[in-house]
Amino acid sequence: MEQQKLILITNDDSVHAKGLHTLVSVAKKIGQVVVVAPDKPQSGMGHAITIHHPLRLKRSFLFGEVEAYSCSGTPVDCVKLGIYEVLKKRPDLILSGINHGENSSTNVLYSGTMSAAIEGAMEDIPSIGFSLCDFNPDADFSSAEMYAEKLINYALRIDFPRRLCLNVNFPKLPIEQINGIKICSQAHAYWADRFEKRTDQFGEAYYWLTGEFTDQDQREETDLFALKNGYVSVVPTHFDLTSYSSISTLKSIEDV
Amino acid sequence: MEQQKLILITNDDSVHAKGLHTLVSVAKKIGQVVVVAPDKPQSGMGHAITIHHPLRLKRSFLFGEVEAYSCSGTPVDCVKLGIYEVLKKRPDLILSGINHGENSSTNVLYSGTMSAAIEGAMEDIPSIGFSLCDFNPDADFSSAEMYAEKLINYALRIDFPRRLCLNVNFPKLPIEQINGIKICSQAHAYWADRFEKRTDQFGEAYYWLTGEFTDQDQREETDLFALKNGYVSVVPTHFDLTSYSSISTLKSIEDV
Repeated sequence: MEQQKLILITNDDSVHAKGLHTLVSVAKKIGQVVVVAPDKPQSGMGHAITIHHPLRLKRSFLFGEVEAYSCSGTPVDCVKLGIYEVLKKRPDLILSGINHGENSSTNVLYSGTMSAAIEGAMEDIPSIGFSLCDFNPDADFSSAEMYAEKLINYALRIDFPRRLCLNVNFPKLPIEQINGIKICSQAHAYWADRFEKRTDQFGEAYYWLTGEFTDQDQREETDLFALKNGYVSVVPTHFDLTSYSSISTLKSIEDV
Repeated sequence: MEQQKLILITNDDSVHAKGLHTLVSVAKKIGQVVVVAPDKPQSGMGHAITIHHPLRLKRSFLFGEVEAYSCSGTPVDCVKLGIYEVLKKRPDLILSGINHGENSSTNVLYSGTMSAAIEGAMEDIPSIGFSLCDFNPDADFSSAEMYAEKLINYALRIDFPRRLCLNVNFPKLPIEQINGIKICSQAHAYWADRFEKRTDQFGEAYYWLTGEFTDQDQREETDLFALKNGYVSVVPTHFDLTSYSSISTLKSIEDV
């Protein structure tokens, strides 16, 4: 008999988020699931790890049966603790999400959800980050749920590329309006940042990050283009940030 | 008369760190310097941004003349606030560091120093992250200082590639033992993570991240190889995480 696949699940919206519960309900049909997720929202935490404070884990159960640890740290801490302290072995798959809100294009850098998946890739464990283009805490995950199941089964079936994770984004659309899945590249879009400057009751200034998302990429193979056209976007994502094409351009740096 | 270059400086070790002061002392010979740096150590913060709290800035001066703002947020927050609130215009160059401790290979993902430089690249501003392979708060920065000056002048002189930053690491060596500068690719090395599990005075467990750095990369063009051989390593670093070579391999995902 084939052994059940072991699936580690995390996210950045916390162990209480609807998106995580949706992902657990899908994954537990496919394998043995263990959850290690932040005990509070950790959006925008990027690839942060906790060095200067100790970490805590609290055990509970989801759906009365799935072991779920809430962790005082970041999403990346959750992956590290999940592998090395909770499971004490390598899972077959790491899933992160389903995030409440889009993580397409350059958002991948800021995203705790995707950083957890990238940490999985760094451990050379097949990993997928899922995000729904809807920030609503009560968002409708039904089409995301169906596609997530297909993609998890696919990831477990194929010879998953080494040191890679998938960045999956679901458009905010009912199932019948989704045109399918597209394999994409990361769009170059960015946040034209602004800060709201306010004054507190003591007359001191404080700043609150706001901003406008600007898509500058004209290519048709990007994740943003796919999402705008009603597709689920999948970007194969790695962690080698070397710009190989610039190495020869910058060779003269060796002579400064 | 040519206008003075405007240089924004940040780091992740805080506005009080010797490495930052070293970098300021070099850069102020070259251009007009403004510092926006964290008010406390922010190592390992990766590309985290502050969404759920307001940010504070406090103005002071370094060397009695250089405007320096200490910021309650992360290194990436400092870059955003530096551009949009402090300078209110785009600097000619963003510098981050000099970090107390190595940021070669995959450490780039966890590093607040390098994430600040990457944020600069995302803003399409020439950016450099500097790190010295010495964690000591009183580290000797004299060889780093000499090479940093060369590299800053180089960056301002060339037609700097778009949406790129440089990840510069200095070996812990006296000047006469440094063999020069090498343009490199990011090594694949990783932290074989372990946690120290302890019990607090209430009998509750807590975990403290530790680990061992493991270099798995046999290539001779990596930053780790250069550093081991007494070179200053420079990795041209971008933020497109797409694994283009995997797109065709994973095309079948569109048919699941």
